[in-house]
Amino acid sequence: MSGQSAVSAAKAALKSQAIELPSWAFGNSGTRFKVFAQPGVPRSPEEKLADAARVHAHTGVAPTVALHIPWDRVDDYATLAAYAGDLGLRLGAINSNVFQDDDYKLGSVTHPDAAVRRKALGHLLECVDIMDATGSRDLKLWFSDGTNYPGQDDISARQGRLAEALSAVYERLGDDQRMLLEYKLFEPAFYTTDVPDWGTAYAHCLKLGPKAQVVVDTGHHAPGTNIEFIVAMLLREGKLGGFDFNSRFYADDDLMVGAADPFQLFRIMYEVVHGGGLDAGIAFMLDQCHNIEEKIPAIIRSVMNVQEATAKALLVDGDALAKAQREGDVLGANAVLMDAYNTDVRPLVAEVRDELGADADPVAAYRSSGYGQKIVADRVGGTQAGWGA
Amino acid sequence: MSGQSAVSAAKAALKSQAIELPSWAFGNSGTRFKVFAQPGVPRSPEEKLADAARVHAHTGVAPTVALHIPWDRVDDYATLAAYAGDLGLRLGAINSNVFQDDDYKLGSVTHPDAAVRRKALGHLLECVDIMDATGSRDLKLWFSDGTNYPGQDDISARQGRLAEALSAVYERLGDDQRMLLEYKLFEPAFYTTDVPDWGTAYAHCLKLGPKAQVVVDTGHHAPGTNIEFIVAMLLREGKLGGFDFNSRFYADDDLMVGAADPFQLFRIMYEVVHGGGLDAGIAFMLDQCHNIEEKIPAIIRSVMNVQEATAKALLVDGDALAKAQREGDVLGANAVLMDAYNTDVRPLVAEVRDELGADADPVAAYRSSGYGQKIVADRVGGTQAGWGA
Amino acid sequence: MSGQSAVSAAKAALKSQAIELPSWAFGNSGTRFKVFAQPGVPRSPEEKLADAARVHAHTGVAPTVALHIPWDRVDDYATLAAYAGDLGLRLGAINSNVFQDDDYKLGSVTHPDAAVRRKALGHLLECVDIMDATGSRDLKLWFSDGTNYPGQDDISARQGRLAEALSAVYERLGDDQRMLLEYKLFEPAFYTTDVPDWGTAYAHCLKLGPKAQVVVDTGHHAPGTNIEFIVAMLLREGKLGGFDFNSRFYADDDLMVGAADPFQLFRIMYEVVHGGGLDAGIAFMLDQCHNIEEKIPAIIRSVMNVQEATAKALLVDGDALAKAQREGDVLGANAVLMDAYNTDVRPLVAEVRDELGADADPVAAYRSSGYGQKIVADRVGGTQAGWGA
Amino acid sequence: MSGQSAVSAAKAALKSQAIELPSWAFGNSGTRFKVFAQPGVPRSPEEKLADAARVHAHTGVAPTVALHIPWDRVDDYATLAAYAGDLGLRLGAINSNVFQDDDYKLGSVTHPDAAVRRKALGHLLECVDIMDATGSRDLKLWFSDGTNYPGQDDISARQGRLAEALSAVYERLGDDQRMLLEYKLFEPAFYTTDVPDWGTAYAHCLKLGPKAQVVVDTGHHAPGTNIEFIVAMLLREGKLGGFDFNSRFYADDDLMVGAADPFQLFRIMYEVVHGGGLDAGIAFMLDQCHNIEEKIPAIIRSVMNVQEATAKALLVDGDALAKAQREGDVLGANAVLMDAYNTDVRPLVAEVRDELGADADPVAAYRSSGYGQKIVADRVGGTQAGWGA
Repeated sequence: MSGQSAVSAAKAALKSQAIELPSWAFGNSGTRFKVFAQPGVPRSPEEKLADAARVHAHTGVAPTVALHIPWDRVDDYATLAAYAGDLGLRLGAINSNVFQDDDYKLGSVTHPDAAVRRKALGHLLECVDIMDATGSRDLKLWFSDGTNYPGQDDISARQGRLAEALSAVYERLGDDQRMLLEYKLFEPAFYTTDVPDWGTAYAHCLKLGPKAQVVVDTGHHAPGTNIEFIVAMLLREGKLGGFDFNSRFYADDDLMVGAADPFQLFRIMYEVVHGGGLDAGIAFMLDQCHNIEEKIPAIIRSVMNVQEATAKALLVDGDALAKAQREGDVLGANAVLMDAYNTDVRPLVAEVRDELGADADPVAAYRSSGYGQKIVADRVGGTQAGWGA
Repeated sequence: MSGQSAVSAAKAALKSQAIELPSWAFGNSGTRFKVFAQPGVPRSPEEKLADAARVHAHTGVAPTVALHIPWDRVDDYATLAAYAGDLGLRLGAINSNVFQDDDYKLGSVTHPDAAVRRKALGHLLECVDIMDATGSRDLKLWFSDGTNYPGQDDISARQGRLAEALSAVYERLGDDQRMLLEYKLFEPAFYTTDVPDWGTAYAHCLKLGPKAQVVVDTGHHAPGTNIEFIVAMLLREGKLGGFDFNSRFYADDDLMVGAADPFQLFRIMYEVVHGGGLDAGIAFMLDQCHNIEEKIPAIIRSVMNVQEATAKALLVDGDALAKAQREGDVLGANAVLMDAYNTDVRPLVAEVRDELGADADPVAAYRSSGYGQKIVADRVGGTQAGWGA
Repeated sequence: MSGQSAVSAAKAALKSQAIELPSWAFGNSGTRFKVFAQPGVPRSPEEKLADAARVHAHTGVAPTVALHIPWDRVDDYATLAAYAGDLGLRLGAINSNVFQDDDYKLGSVTHPDAAVRRKALGHLLECVDIMDATGSRDLKLWFSDGTNYPGQDDISARQGRLAEALSAVYERLGDDQRMLLEYKLFEPAFYTTDVPDWGTAYAHCLKLGPKAQVVVDTGHHAPGTNIEFIVAMLLREGKLGGFDFNSRFYADDDLMVGAADPFQLFRIMYEVVHGGGLDAGIAFMLDQCHNIEEKIPAIIRSVMNVQEATAKALLVDGDALAKAQREGDVLGANAVLMDAYNTDVRPLVAEVRDELGADADPVAAYRSSGYGQKIVADRVGGTQAGWGA
Repeated sequence: MSGQSAVSAAKAALKSQAIELPSWAFGNSGTRFKVFAQPGVPRSPEEKLADAARVHAHTGVAPTVALHIPWDRVDDYATLAAYAGDLGLRLGAINSNVFQDDDYKLGSVTHPDAAVRRKALGHLLECVDIMDATGSRDLKLWFSDGTNYPGQDDISARQGRLAEALSAVYERLGDDQRMLLEYKLFEPAFYTTDVPDWGTAYAHCLKLGPKAQVVVDTGHHAPGTNIEFIVAMLLREGKLGGFDFNSRFYADDDLMVGAADPFQLFRIMYEVVHGGGLDAGIAFMLDQCHNIEEKIPAIIRSVMNVQEATAKALLVDGDALAKAQREGDVLGANAVLMDAYNTDVRPLVAEVRDELGADADPVAAYRSSGYGQKIVADRVGGTQAGWGA
């Protein structure tokens, strides 16, 4: 492909990209040490949607919003979906929560007590009911289940309980619905986690069937893990269901995606592009915490970071790369990749946004919109949304 | 030393060992995901002291309790100290807290705003006032200060602000008072932490003078860090002020000390013993969270774990070890160490406790004491103490 | 089971345990910085077997020896097997080597050049021929294949090439032969490794069929990885083929098994015992380097370390543990495990060895045997065996 | 500073930058698994200098070459220096080697045996003699000293021996000479390393005096370590003597600097620029292995990577950054840094090279020079230089 047609193709791909926003990123969040509240934070699912709509208006590529149940529980999900539609949005993945009830101290679907397991399963099935109402395609399952001390519970028995619950949920899924199983190395469990790595998630999804897929949270790996390798593996196996994007220097730091290691994000997006993942129904979701920075512009910046990494990945000269790889030209192949990475794609992405009717400089546009000041003035009283609230 | 006299010496050393309990370990704690409340948890500093007294009664080696300000703020610290005395306890280190006010979102003593720095310093100085009232020797300083994003603040300027605050506190210390500076790799700061490693803490303490010492929290290191090396270095330099004991498989998991890697705890205690640290005024403090396990028995178990590791360290045949080391006998030297580690010291430690008038089996004694049931029945109403409350 | 019958059962299990010795551990080894030669090191496969026979004579539980091809290439493998038989040994797993020819600079079975792939496959098939001759059950496959730089080769294409080679080898296996696929996080490949984790090995083995199994090398994981979880998973899935035992503080340090974290080794062996793995045909192999310590006593010590960890695992009171787990008694369940771990099993294991006709104190017996001095005197001239020679 | 004058200042700074090449990077290197030989590799110190001269000719900023003794031992260092001068080069740091003699199996300057320590010290003093002859300013000291097993030697005693040796070398230094002490987490020592972290190196250098400085090797840290923090600390303390540049995904992978995490390299160079380190006499040295890629172009690429990171660091808008930091504008401050990082500085750096009389595209210029083919043809026979040879 010539340089110019590569750029055109990249622009087309960028225009059709959709990045899903997590409703909870608009609320307060923090660490176990402290949650710092911010003025203007939403107090309801509707206000979260309103904020999300601003992000989409400025960036043009964030048309869906993931919900977290029970944090976004409403009486009538169809009404909420319609409200989203009025804002130019759609409701995205439903995220279950089986980690914040007192009953879940020793686990949810893997708890030694069958009564707790039943309760947890009930919640997961309720989430599928909500999907029916919202029209959501994806159920995202993250389990905090695990143990803190050696001997605390039986590792293998917990896998059996997990398999049982997953199977029951799988059976309940509609034809066009999927379950996305997330893995995480540790936290809040500090000795074993019941789905700690992609291998475990993959093993379960393989047994469940095609509607079960793995979701890669970029912050959930052991130090040194090559995440793009996992992405390539799962894509190859047809088992990559989606991403939870964020970034980290240490553990599950949940910083803005691309903030800690933009080159890693590029390498991940390169594997997605190269493996045909842009058109494979993969959900590109943000999952971040904005503990100390302003939330809406942080989310805008995150969307831009994914977009810029995608743009660079799209600019890799595939023919030149394949040739260098075939010839065993280590430096040449690496240089092809680095050439794309070193390109300043900001003008290109600004054009894309411009052509989409969004803003060339989304953060500046948000700043000058007055929206930030407006929500601070308006959202007085009530209970602010918080991570876990 | 013959085998029998080594055992006698070990017993004598174990009898004089003192392990400090953290008041906050008796309260509720958790992760950012959830704090699981437990029945019977203390509602006041006095109730925390009462629980600590039980731990000391059963183990015989936990005579002091560290306070955390403002969590343990009372009107009259002298009265609190007297109450502790009535329970057979003394008040230990005063732990400052400059991380839970909204003002501290971007730092405390290293905050870019001088007003926030002044406020933080004021709190630290207040803690020295409290030390005067309680008779505490040690001020323990842990700063959550740091940044989450590259560029957020000036790394070097923050060091300057830190040095200024530490110097002001140092000047305020009485002749018999010390400041213990703690370091931590990360969390809650996710990009830089202002005191991230022993080197930074050491550099500051060296400039401040002999009353400034480094405290080693066993959970605050990068993966792969050899903690006992740091202990040996600091002991050698006369700069090891104390320990915050806990254990971890991943990050700052704050599990019961010795739970994750008992061999590491033994190696640490071996360096302490070998470096003369048992008689060097080092504070042996627990600093743990009991998120899902019962708190009092977990603390009893932790005290026992430190004691057993110390016992094994005391049993190392120093002459045989030195000879093997001198001769370059790698396997022989390692075998001397492992021989002590592989010894079952539980009978020996039970004897020590028996001779101290405590219980040979402290957990069983606690279980049969009825204290656990009593506090659940009595402590109804009021606000439970919590980590951060 | 009562305490006494538990001990009897443990002794019976320990007597039937078989730990496989790697021929290469008797030769010189080192790091990229330096290989330190030791006097008396074997110069032929036969001399390696002789050394292994000493280890078996003293320990009673090391009856098989793994070979590494081409390091242990001989003209007549049947004769070598007979020689092993004369020494009271059997030949164990055949280890392939496709990483030390110049052709393998960019990979072996995943190399971009089909000619190199054919050569590598040829070697693997030759190894199966050797298995036919030696009567070995297991082919152990470790691939150093991977890349050093992003872009260097196509991650997914390399998986395709790997699958092709594995499939060809699988087809060649006899009815009673197995292939054991090993994974490793990194080294010598420094960006991607083609089989970097258990998930990748599992995915390939699953497709290949029942004769393909995963081998867990205890030194091949990212920091923080919970190895016993992987062991439990693979056992549960019927895909745990064997272990390569060694230990590490940092990366693939290849220290004596149990030397760095004896509690971890115990936890691993507990999962093996609990999951029925002692009778499941799992190969318990050592794979270590003795860079600076004397080799034969280091191997004896390693065998003892596995044995002691197994003994402790066998002593876990399963009924008490299951009860505590069922009741959600976190501290109680942990205490059951720790009780077994804290037991000094050395007298028990000495009895086992005594009853097997081996030595209660194998290292002392080796020292007093004069074998070490004899090989130093005898093995003069010729080329010492070395890791990679 | 306006944009244009910032660019001018950046260009001036880039023109005066000097990156030191390591003689050993031109030779063969590898891992413990295999050293892959490459055609055309130098066979003498003179041929290494000739290769280095090519790198300097194409890049314009690599005027000095570090030597490694004994790998680069010659009869007459003055003649070698003159030869370097003829090639337009100067001889740089002298690197000592006390890790490749059989005597050093258990250490060099920290060895338990005084005779080995004396030998090692003798070598270090010889290196200072060589510095006198070559006119080198810096003695770079890296010690592989450490232990593999707990108990193997006395951690504290080894520190004492180390201090003694360093002191003797320090006394021997001339007025204009410095010693640069390097630290490394692990390898080849696998339990303790005698200088494992910056804190240890700093503590020794502080006691020695102003001619002792710390050198930061970017590959020598525990996972998660914030290297730029260390750089800022050492600069602030006046103790940063130099860098050994390379990059790594896992351990001490020694890949081309900037290859694994270009953003990290930028952050490091930002701290250097911001802390006044460009004019502080800091040695910017490469220290890498080119195991599978062609050596000369890999070194050219590495020089370019350092240059590009420096260029980006120089483009950071310091006023805007300071303002945002002062105001606590987390996103704004981060954006200032990212704006510089996201700039494509390749045209700017090409201009710099052009104006220096070097090549705008150094790799292409090297390729078309025919030098690579020439050395392959010429350098036949003799012994190729290798890492450790």
